[in-house]
Amino acid sequence: MRVRILTGIVLVLVLVAVCLFLDTLLFNAVICAVSGLGVFELLRAMKLLEFKDLVVLSMSQALIIPFMRAGYVERLGAPIVLAVTLCYFVLMVKNSGRVEIGRISSVFMFSTLIPLFFSCAVYIRDDFSGDARSGFYLFLALGAGWLSDTGAYFVGTFFGRHKMIPSISPKKTWEGTAGGIIFCTAVTLLIGMGTERWLWGAGISARVDYRLLFFLTPLFSVAGMLGDLTASAIKREFGIKDYGNLMPGHGGVLDRFDSVLFTLPAVYTAVRYLEILSVMAD
Amino acid sequence: MRVRILTGIVLVLVLVAVCLFLDTLLFNAVICAVSGLGVFELLRAMKLLEFKDLVVLSMSQALIIPFMRAGYVERLGAPIVLAVTLCYFVLMVKNSGRVEIGRISSVFMFSTLIPLFFSCAVYIRDDFSGDARSGFYLFLALGAGWLSDTGAYFVGTFFGRHKMIPSISPKKTWEGTAGGIIFCTAVTLLIGMGTERWLWGAGISARVDYRLLFFLTPLFSVAGMLGDLTASAIKREFGIKDYGNLMPGHGGVLDRFDSVLFTLPAVYTAVRYLEILSVMAD
Repeated sequence: MRVRILTGIVLVLVLVAVCLFLDTLLFNAVICAVSGLGVFELLRAMKLLEFKDLVVLSMSQALIIPFMRAGYVERLGAPIVLAVTLCYFVLMVKNSGRVEIGRISSVFMFSTLIPLFFSCAVYIRDDFSGDARSGFYLFLALGAGWLSDTGAYFVGTFFGRHKMIPSISPKKTWEGTAGGIIFCTAVTLLIGMGTERWLWGAGISARVDYRLLFFLTPLFSVAGMLGDLTASAIKREFGIKDYGNLMPGHGGVLDRFDSVLFTLPAVYTAVRYLEILSVMAD
Repeated sequence: MRVRILTGIVLVLVLVAVCLFLDTLLFNAVICAVSGLGVFELLRAMKLLEFKDLVVLSMSQALIIPFMRAGYVERLGAPIVLAVTLCYFVLMVKNSGRVEIGRISSVFMFSTLIPLFFSCAVYIRDDFSGDARSGFYLFLALGAGWLSDTGAYFVGTFFGRHKMIPSISPKKTWEGTAGGIIFCTAVTLLIGMGTERWLWGAGISARVDYRLLFFLTPLFSVAGMLGDLTASAIKREFGIKDYGNLMPGHGGVLDRFDSVLFTLPAVYTAVRYLEILSVMAD
């Protein structure tokens, strides 16, 4: 528990450091590194590291996607996406009889979605660049993932009676899940109030739409839990306990960011259509 | 062979009929039907029809994608894509232990790519709507698929000596492949000349970039052959001979359109960047 908390503190410090470079390509690079690590952990979990061609293809995909909106890469977007996709079929044909199509499909699915979902952090940064909204929305995504986890853990420990899906995640209870959603929503509303007040103090006319926040946060929270369950279902099928030990006490990228991986696209999709935080120009 | 030719004639007639409605939503509907049939054939090949939830999800995906650029569906694009994607993870969790993650990933991959690749026909129609280019580019994609097949078949039959990938497709030879590419390129250049002449005759100042056509057609042809090989690799892994018998003598949608499925995105991607046919406004 001590190691866990210490690593947690380091993780928060790294996050703060990353925030300082939010508006530079360094942020893309961090997302790129996290995506690459995530995909690598998954390939290792699926015992596919020996198939070098598949590793090279999926890793390059993980490294390209976070930059897909930057400069030259964007202009060449469609041909790159098509070329990468066709390469998967080349590997299907080439490895036919050695690697099952299902495993190559899994690599395609996860090497596309893990970097794409993480890249939603970059998209949020890009679409609301230069004002307070990008930071708030990123916070919202991280919060929806981690606050739900935390809430579910404590409520589940004290009040958990009814198991949810014991075959995948033996400790999860319905009480914990409900507690996680409620805790996450409550704290998020408080963070919203704090942010609004803080921005006003800094001379920025900001308004949080609390009604939207009240209805959307539970959805973000559920998305995060789905990420958590998916990560567990994969671990269960491949018979591993953790995806890695990069962050002692927290496991690998996919252990720590499993829920955030799903809250990021959920938050990004929502804020493309709905203005949770509006910042008025003076 | 007789049934095959007869069905072929019917197929060409249907194609001509479809061309008459090229600029209406009926064309989207045809692509939608073809995508749906393709995905259905694949689910049947993978013996997944008993998993109703997976069938419903993948079929709805196949039916939505060809309309993704039309009206309301386009405006709600991102949430629809995200919701459908998250549903796959729900099914992964729900069916954990019963259906392998690899099989669900395969369904995700093919139910995304088959409709998306077919929809490139809609995108070509949309992007070059109302002038001669849309028809020419669609023709190019169909030609690259079917002319390569035909060329490879005849050249392979007469001159085929060296087997290419006997484990997947025992009849394919390197001679046939080379013959297919050359035949396809030659006929495509002739079609280009004919189209140019025909358009001039109709009073439209059109110009075909023969150099582009000469360098790109072999690539389209190779893409088509990759489609063919992929379809064979899947059939081989799941131990089936044909995807269906919808078109007697030609098999199912995936048997007849396996190469076209890959030439469509290749042609679409190319013509987004390079102007193979230019039509000058008078």
